Amino acid sequence: MSLDQIFAARTQRMKASEIRELLKLLDRPGILSFAGGIPDPELFPTRAFAGAMAEVMDHDGRAALQYSVSEGYLPLRRWIAGHMARLGIACDADQVLITSGSQQALDYLGKLFLSPGDTALVTAPTYLGALGAFNPYEPRYDRLEPRANRAPQDIAQAARAAGSEVKFAYLSADFANPTGETLDQAGREAVLDMAEALDCAVIEDGAYQALRYRGREVPTLLALELARKGDLDACRTIYTGSFSKTLSPGLRVGWVVAARPVIRQLVLMKQASDLHSPSFNQMAVHAVAQSRFDDHVAMLRRVYGRRCEAMLEALGRHMPAGVRWTRPDGGMFVWLTLPQANASDLLAHALAQYDLAFVPGRAFFADGSGDDTLRLSFSCAGEALIDEGMARLGAAIRDLAGGAGGGA
Amino acid sequence: MSLDQIFAARTQRMKASEIRELLKLLDRPGILSFAGGIPDPELFPTRAFAGAMAEVMDHDGRAALQYSVSEGYLPLRRWIAGHMARLGIACDADQVLITSGSQQALDYLGKLFLSPGDTALVTAPTYLGALGAFNPYEPRYDRLEPRANRAPQDIAQAARAAGSEVKFAYLSADFANPTGETLDQAGREAVLDMAEALDCAVIEDGAYQALRYRGREVPTLLALELARKGDLDACRTIYTGSFSKTLSPGLRVGWVVAARPVIRQLVLMKQASDLHSPSFNQMAVHAVAQSRFDDHVAMLRRVYGRRCEAMLEALGRHMPAGVRWTRPDGGMFVWLTLPQANASDLLAHALAQYDLAFVPGRAFFADGSGDDTLRLSFSCAGEALIDEGMARLGAAIRDLAGGAGGGA
Repeated sequence: MSLDQIFAARTQRMKASEIRELLKLLDRPGILSFAGGIPDPELFPTRAFAGAMAEVMDHDGRAALQYSVSEGYLPLRRWIAGHMARLGIACDADQVLITSGSQQALDYLGKLFLSPGDTALVTAPTYLGALGAFNPYEPRYDRLEPRANRAPQDIAQAARAAGSEVKFAYLSADFANPTGETLDQAGREAVLDMAEALDCAVIEDGAYQALRYRGREVPTLLALELARKGDLDACRTIYTGSFSKTLSPGLRVGWVVAARPVIRQLVLMKQASDLHSPSFNQMAVHAVAQSRFDDHVAMLRRVYGRRCEAMLEALGRHMPAGVRWTRPDGGMFVWLTLPQANASDLLAHALAQYDLAFVPGRAFFADGSGDDTLRLSFSCAGEALIDEGMARLGAAIRDLAGGAGGGA
Repeated sequence: MSLDQIFAARTQRMKASEIRELLKLLDRPGILSFAGGIPDPELFPTRAFAGAMAEVMDHDGRAALQYSVSEGYLPLRRWIAGHMARLGIACDADQVLITSGSQQALDYLGKLFLSPGDTALVTAPTYLGALGAFNPYEPRYDRLEPRANRAPQDIAQAARAAGSEVKFAYLSADFANPTGETLDQAGREAVLDMAEALDCAVIEDGAYQALRYRGREVPTLLALELARKGDLDACRTIYTGSFSKTLSPGLRVGWVVAARPVIRQLVLMKQASDLHSPSFNQMAVHAVAQSRFDDHVAMLRRVYGRRCEAMLEALGRHMPAGVRWTRPDGGMFVWLTLPQANASDLLAHALAQYDLAFVPGRAFFADGSGDDTLRLSFSCAGEALIDEGMARLGAAIRDLAGGAGGGA
């Protein structure tokens, strides 16, 4: 007997992430990689953290090492409430739950809403990690198309026909992973209208929200819904935030802001699943956020913004005709659509001939489409390397187009 | 509409833990409390952690703040493999997964094995947090009675009659929370025999394993099974360990040791649910474990051992006839059975009249029994306070017995 014979049915939906397996191969030395979607560690506030950590251990070491409450460290929840207020979201500390990164919030929200067969609406493409978090709860997926004006009754009817109920729409409205795109205010209002019509929740993934490089801030969906309703406890939008893209991913500190009935149930889930996020980490993040969040984020915006610009310019210089790409206002990614080539074939060729890596887009689609797309990350590359990388990518695409044309 | 209308069915099984709600009341100043089951923060290696943390930030700060692999920090997994070898469990680093406390391991194991209605065998009483972790996966519970020689075919038949399948037996064999009791080797072998007959997994919770104060170490269930089979990958026992009771609970570092097919699936689960445990915490725990685990645990054994002894002696001095209690060889708890009184009534009386707190035992039973039991923790109280506390407890029990007898 082998124990995998008695694993629960949900494990059938939990596969190794293609992209993570790929990243292990791609990040080998000598490869010019635009694959990993991670912050540049050279930009971490390492010295500030070292100082804050020493102070936490000096003044409050025993509390930092002891069990603490499932809701999260109160001074940090208060700081987050202040941060959310600046995004137009007035909330109290008891409408905030600290999670171990916003990834954990996505897991909890899947667990909170999804019985097997329930419908989750996701964009195509969407954040791969959201699919990974939701899959163990065995949802049915349908497409969220904020710009296409898909009628709510069609979505509801398709769900009913599948014996399913729509539980939530999940989206990242600002500089989404993987496309880098931002949903405009009309699109956000349309998602809220749709959620009202479907009587479902909205999960707004704000992981990249702070990293805007140009253009004007668009109000978050939660801010827009709050403006309609006047009371966060009446809102159906659940906002997930993270310090991973601003201060540090490795400390695993994120948060959820939502109506109290949602937070209360999530606190029970947190208690049952890992008791609480590490006390020490919350205290250290609080100290650094309090002393330098704005300054640090301003620096990140300048540096990442230059890299983003450099990538867009290099794409303009080096891409052959027919290749299309997004023009992000923030975040870490540019999304390419190829005129005909398969992005997995292109990756094999780019790796073999040009020591160049990126992520084929297919993994970001719940329905297995997207063969002609790929994701480029500009977060970790200097501007000269970006130009060199895009030149190689252009050459690789031309090779394949020529090869396809010539039958070689 | 309120979002709780569309919560998944599993949320019906996720209630606020009585004991946690109680602890908020009980730990108020002026109360002499034996309720909280937490380590004494005065015994934390706080200075060692402060030094280790400073060194981690100095030498490897960027890696400590960056994303890392879902499996866990390799040097820590290697240290744990060495630690397990000393428990008679030869294993490789890829048979170890780092979790955020062993609580997270219990959540993952529920998620791994339990479809709604599947049977989990648990002792009565059992660790409350295990029930909390398993409940969202909607199991049926049946009793694990290692000493009662319950026939596996009876357990299997009861499961079949309920349309259920037995997936695992969960137990803490050493100094269990809440009873403090240790299962002898014959009992452990019997659990393994039963699991073979039922073809189910065994989850061995080793949270308190290192805290032995007297008597000889009993081999873990996993070591016994490994001795039978010679290959960890052939074993059905899954061992969960934790640094929470030895080094620090607040850093949330625990582990699972199991056969590779189990670890591989748990790694996918970890990736989907929170990506990885905090890089920094794993590095800091590794540094402190490497430099002083044995010395630190030896100190804890001396101090907690004296407190345990003091409580047993004080119970002998102060308990009225008819009260029974366990005589733990380690851990943090003594378990009392009252001759007739209800422990919740006793708590109300003890709080009101004696400023004394403990935890009524009922919450530790999956089947709602145990009204006549209570848990005392000796981990955080000095020896003089223990004597005073047990004197008050004896008086409170006598009051209630007198009251019951006299009808007052």
